[in-house]
Amino acid sequence: MDLQNQILDLGRRAHAASRALAKASTEQKNSALLAMADALEKETDAILVANTSDLARAKANGLSAAMIDRLTLDPKRIKAMADGIRQVAALPDPVGENLRDWTRPNGIHISKVRVPIGVVGIIYESRPNVTSDAAVLCTKTGNATILRGGSESIDSNLAIASALQHGLAHAGLPADSILLIPTTDREAVKYLCAMDQYLNVIVPRGGKSLIETVVAHARMPVIKHYDGICIIYVDKEADLEMAGRIVMNAKTQRPGVCNAIETVILHADIAEEFFATTGKALLEKGVQLRCDERAYAQLSTFHHQLILRATEADWRTEFLDLILAVKIADTTEEAITHIDDNGSHHSDGIITRNAATAEQFLNEVDSATVYWNASTRFTDGGEFGFGAEIGISTDRLHARGPMALEELTTYKYQIRGTGQIRE
Amino acid sequence: MDLQNQILDLGRRAHAASRALAKASTEQKNSALLAMADALEKETDAILVANTSDLARAKANGLSAAMIDRLTLDPKRIKAMADGIRQVAALPDPVGENLRDWTRPNGIHISKVRVPIGVVGIIYESRPNVTSDAAVLCTKTGNATILRGGSESIDSNLAIASALQHGLAHAGLPADSILLIPTTDREAVKYLCAMDQYLNVIVPRGGKSLIETVVAHARMPVIKHYDGICIIYVDKEADLEMAGRIVMNAKTQRPGVCNAIETVILHADIAEEFFATTGKALLEKGVQLRCDERAYAQLSTFHHQLILRATEADWRTEFLDLILAVKIADTTEEAITHIDDNGSHHSDGIITRNAATAEQFLNEVDSATVYWNASTRFTDGGEFGFGAEIGISTDRLHARGPMALEELTTYKYQIRGTGQIRE
Repeated sequence: MDLQNQILDLGRRAHAASRALAKASTEQKNSALLAMADALEKETDAILVANTSDLARAKANGLSAAMIDRLTLDPKRIKAMADGIRQVAALPDPVGENLRDWTRPNGIHISKVRVPIGVVGIIYESRPNVTSDAAVLCTKTGNATILRGGSESIDSNLAIASALQHGLAHAGLPADSILLIPTTDREAVKYLCAMDQYLNVIVPRGGKSLIETVVAHARMPVIKHYDGICIIYVDKEADLEMAGRIVMNAKTQRPGVCNAIETVILHADIAEEFFATTGKALLEKGVQLRCDERAYAQLSTFHHQLILRATEADWRTEFLDLILAVKIADTTEEAITHIDDNGSHHSDGIITRNAATAEQFLNEVDSATVYWNASTRFTDGGEFGFGAEIGISTDRLHARGPMALEELTTYKYQIRGTGQIRE
Repeated sequence: MDLQNQILDLGRRAHAASRALAKASTEQKNSALLAMADALEKETDAILVANTSDLARAKANGLSAAMIDRLTLDPKRIKAMADGIRQVAALPDPVGENLRDWTRPNGIHISKVRVPIGVVGIIYESRPNVTSDAAVLCTKTGNATILRGGSESIDSNLAIASALQHGLAHAGLPADSILLIPTTDREAVKYLCAMDQYLNVIVPRGGKSLIETVVAHARMPVIKHYDGICIIYVDKEADLEMAGRIVMNAKTQRPGVCNAIETVILHADIAEEFFATTGKALLEKGVQLRCDERAYAQLSTFHHQLILRATEADWRTEFLDLILAVKIADTTEEAITHIDDNGSHHSDGIITRNAATAEQFLNEVDSATVYWNASTRFTDGGEFGFGAEIGISTDRLHARGPMALEELTTYKYQIRGTGQIRE
């Protein structure tokens, strides 16, 4: 079978499985999840053997130590995957929820109910535990899934998917509910993107070039995660001690994640005081400050090597590092306009004591999550209380912000009548 | 300016307008809608002059009488457009609705609130009143819109859009909230599809080739309407008088619309009785019956010229005419499988007295709207009580089924804290 037909075959099987899975009760799905967790633990040896072969290839290919660490599995990490599945089993099932219902004057009764999406395609890179994390959220919500992992972890991914399928089958649900593309051929992604007769949505998790390929080729809806260029504005009426604490947290607690900030905007009235305290603290933490002209002029008295002039590109760069762009603004409007023009509409915040200014910011900043007096680092399915997360969407439709179980569902209308016809 | 830059310029202007419109209060938007209605009426003469030039071109190009009728405007039709706008002004504004809010253990308060999408692209064909209908629903929901109408009605569309812009400006909202692509060049659609930096969603309303082009090229989400291949299953426990009434309504009341049925599936136990009553009535109404082998064998005793054997393609054809495919099934499962494999997941129904069979059908048929004992013709924004309709989505994500004001919105999270940082 050529690659295109291989992918089509996966699509057909996933579609058929999705029809069976959509009928499964919450109890059936939860038993399957527990069986999947058990199967992962039981097949630890086989998974570790597969992982060894990924690691040997990775070392031969000269992958970095950090990459190899992300790739490495051990019994503890496999146990953690299994425990993660058990936690998902314990979450409430969103499927079947009555979202709204009403009766029309002619007597027909309309219910809008939550249902699975169908078949969800997920493309991801490198870490093998995503195979389990992503598949499990799909099973919980009654969706079949076609997974496409990174080439580095293909053997581990196949072994994990195989264990999950054994768990499904053990619980009487179709093993085809979780299918992993068994080849690392890049063309497979294009065939996946073309298969809108079977694949209902595609979620690319990874680098820009992967996402670009998917956006350019996909015929089905895409839920993606582009940059997190998050920005905090410190208003003239800010509690500067709080502002310092939040900016420090949002920049330095974990600089490599999407909800860390890349720019701070300071109101001109408080810039000097902010620099004297938080500015110094940031420099002491090793944060490089890339400043606009006014901020640079104020900070130049520090004579510190980490103080640089910002380039135009810096305002639109996701540094993912101990680098912070610094801008001075004269008004809240100027800050909002800067965020609208340069941010990635992911997570942005204002620090102020003035409730009216805060409400203006919360309403006018057009981002998935907008904060008043809290760190942007809370943009996360777990921190939101969703119990799980499949990613953070920077798209505007269907799913915006942290994407968890509800975002893996859609709805349909059920209409109950007594013989009504349209006049 | 070349075409690509013309489209980019429209995008930039629409994006800027959308930021202002998103801030507008419900009162401001409603005053603008009323001013738009007044402007349409006031500019009736200019619109009719433009319409005359469309009509002259249509006649020179030999368009059919039906097409010319759809294209023709007169003071009464313009008044109807204006009254339609006034009705939309009277509807509740979905923007700003608090969808859900909760407080996390660390004290941050999360609100999920309804907001405009941003810039909505709408591509449509032929009838000039769609220019007003579509633009007005976008204005009501705080979205800017870029419209691309059919080439036949370009002059009328431009005159209508111009009147609407005058109304917006009169009420102090940006005229650029409603922009119409002023050229009929087909390449414009491709540039529109590529412009994901400004256009947040694209809604193609029209023929298959238009939708295909948009699906193949769009980088932003598409909400589309493909076929309406709707199917009714008459169960063995159906009230056959009711079944006859509903099938007759769903097939013949308006055969050219998407929620009319194209196939009826009869349980083998009731087929003969159904044929003797409703079968005869359908033939008397001039409905051609395209039958599977079993139905054909039963109906052959009628010796009627409208009784034919179905081809394989008939099961997947949207006839939009007095043609009905007829299939006999032995079980509800067989009917559901046929609907899943051949229908377009738009609107499907079951006629039965058995509540358990009905619930199985309502749950297992994977369509946007599923009916029990009612005509499929009710799939419509007006019939659902939405007060408006921008189309009926056959997509599964964001909008499914009748698409009205709520479906022209998205959400964002607003988080209010007291200095919380992530540990």
